Amino acid sequence: MIRRLAVVGLGLLGGSVAKAARAHGVAAEIAGVGRDPARIDAARRDGTVDVVTTDLAATLRDADLVVLATPVRTLGRLLEDVARAVGPETIVTDVGSTKAALVAVAGRLARTYPLRFVGSHPMAGSEQSGYAHARADLFHGATVIVTPTETSVPAAVKTVTAFWEALGATRVLALDPDTHDRAVAAISHLPHLAAFALVDAVERLEPGAFDVAARGFRDTTRIAASDATMWEEIFLANRDALAAGLDAFRAALADLEHLITAGDSAGLRTALARIKARREALR
Amino acid sequence: MIRRLAVVGLGLLGGSVAKAARAHGVAAEIAGVGRDPARIDAARRDGTVDVVTTDLAATLRDADLVVLATPVRTLGRLLEDVARAVGPETIVTDVGSTKAALVAVAGRLARTYPLRFVGSHPMAGSEQSGYAHARADLFHGATVIVTPTETSVPAAVKTVTAFWEALGATRVLALDPDTHDRAVAAISHLPHLAAFALVDAVERLEPGAFDVAARGFRDTTRIAASDATMWEEIFLANRDALAAGLDAFRAALADLEHLITAGDSAGLRTALARIKARREALR
Repeated sequence: MIRRLAVVGLGLLGGSVAKAARAHGVAAEIAGVGRDPARIDAARRDGTVDVVTTDLAATLRDADLVVLATPVRTLGRLLEDVARAVGPETIVTDVGSTKAALVAVAGRLARTYPLRFVGSHPMAGSEQSGYAHARADLFHGATVIVTPTETSVPAAVKTVTAFWEALGATRVLALDPDTHDRAVAAISHLPHLAAFALVDAVERLEPGAFDVAARGFRDTTRIAASDATMWEEIFLANRDALAAGLDAFRAALADLEHLITAGDSAGLRTALARIKARREALR
Repeated sequence: MIRRLAVVGLGLLGGSVAKAARAHGVAAEIAGVGRDPARIDAARRDGTVDVVTTDLAATLRDADLVVLATPVRTLGRLLEDVARAVGPETIVTDVGSTKAALVAVAGRLARTYPLRFVGSHPMAGSEQSGYAHARADLFHGATVIVTPTETSVPAAVKTVTAFWEALGATRVLALDPDTHDRAVAAISHLPHLAAFALVDAVERLEPGAFDVAARGFRDTTRIAASDATMWEEIFLANRDALAAGLDAFRAALADLEHLITAGDSAGLRTALARIKARREALR
């Protein structure tokens, strides 16, 4: 049982963390920290958090667990402020989509401050954003990746893992930060980029075709309605792993196109059947 | 009211046409035509069709409307047999995903035979295939594209249009066959190819990442579980329009990648916001 949970940033993910923590009775007190009092006040009014504050330092001093849920671009700088504010027993995690850079910042800060940080990335989200879309069940059945390193405090890894399980995650998986970044480049960032490019390709090619879009196109491009600022930051933050993902994607596309151009029915059927089997294994 | 409806091929689409026609009382009698008696017999046993037969010529002679629902690759040859079998009042349509080649065959056959053909493409489907997945409501709310030409008989266009409306389609849209093929290359065939390539890219790059796939990846690649033979045939049948679609897709991807590589936050944010707005307009 956590006495005081502080959630910094109450957008879709931070709001859902607070709502899920409240719903599961995970913390005696939940504090919401944000920059815009008007915006975070919604979480106090609906009972999701007990206090809302813009005073990071005062709130974090007494927290057992701090969850950073601000945009990816801001996490490094925020973590510096957090490191200065927290007490020696406070455990800190985040919900950011990339991990290597932030974990490196945490490692550096831990040499100076008593920072007990473990990175987290809940594999749950939505093309929607903002507190209005936050849901207590967002993490229900989800996989959460945590990214401890050799210098992580074991008790912190244990607490963060137990926290996600308490919020409804089915599985909490530990990956090193670089492996995490490569994996999410492939399974999340590349599909988002491809979805954006697909919508743009139709716009360039045959805008009238939007008019006859069926379920296939809608599902394939649902995530192209995701928040532009959030994805700009994620794509830039993980650009190296994403570039490798794009190379593999282009190679896969080129191989299929080659079979099509060559009119190689049997080869194309074999390739598609292999991919279909791989996709079906996911269900 | 149609006296006799004949559906040739009782897979997902043909089966759904027959089930929807039955559910909406569109035809007094429904005949199912197929090559494999054991397979088509399921449609007789469950009351979807009144008769099942492997004798194309005998069944089509007395039909008011014939719907061809066999694989794309087989439609040209099938239409030759159909042209020889039908009476002068029989109207023929199909459900194929490409139209220019088939409509050209129909135009050629119509010089010799009394063939009243109008191409159709219901923009509805599923990654599943086969009669077991056929549904009476598959066309409910769907858009159907019909592809009449200058030589089409107006009564045939009217009958085919009314037929799809009776089966639940919200909108029946007439496009010329080439425009149709370009539109579906962009809005359907390209997204299918991209979905197959995405799954393959993850397999090549980071197979372990499948293990942390969330809803975004599942939705984006749902259609990569589609029937391999069906999509091999569609990709090959529409290869020219698909090649143009791939060019536009590669250009859209390259433009986004360029902004990412350059670290151009503002430019990337603007591009993503523009695409997001386009995608949201689809809802």
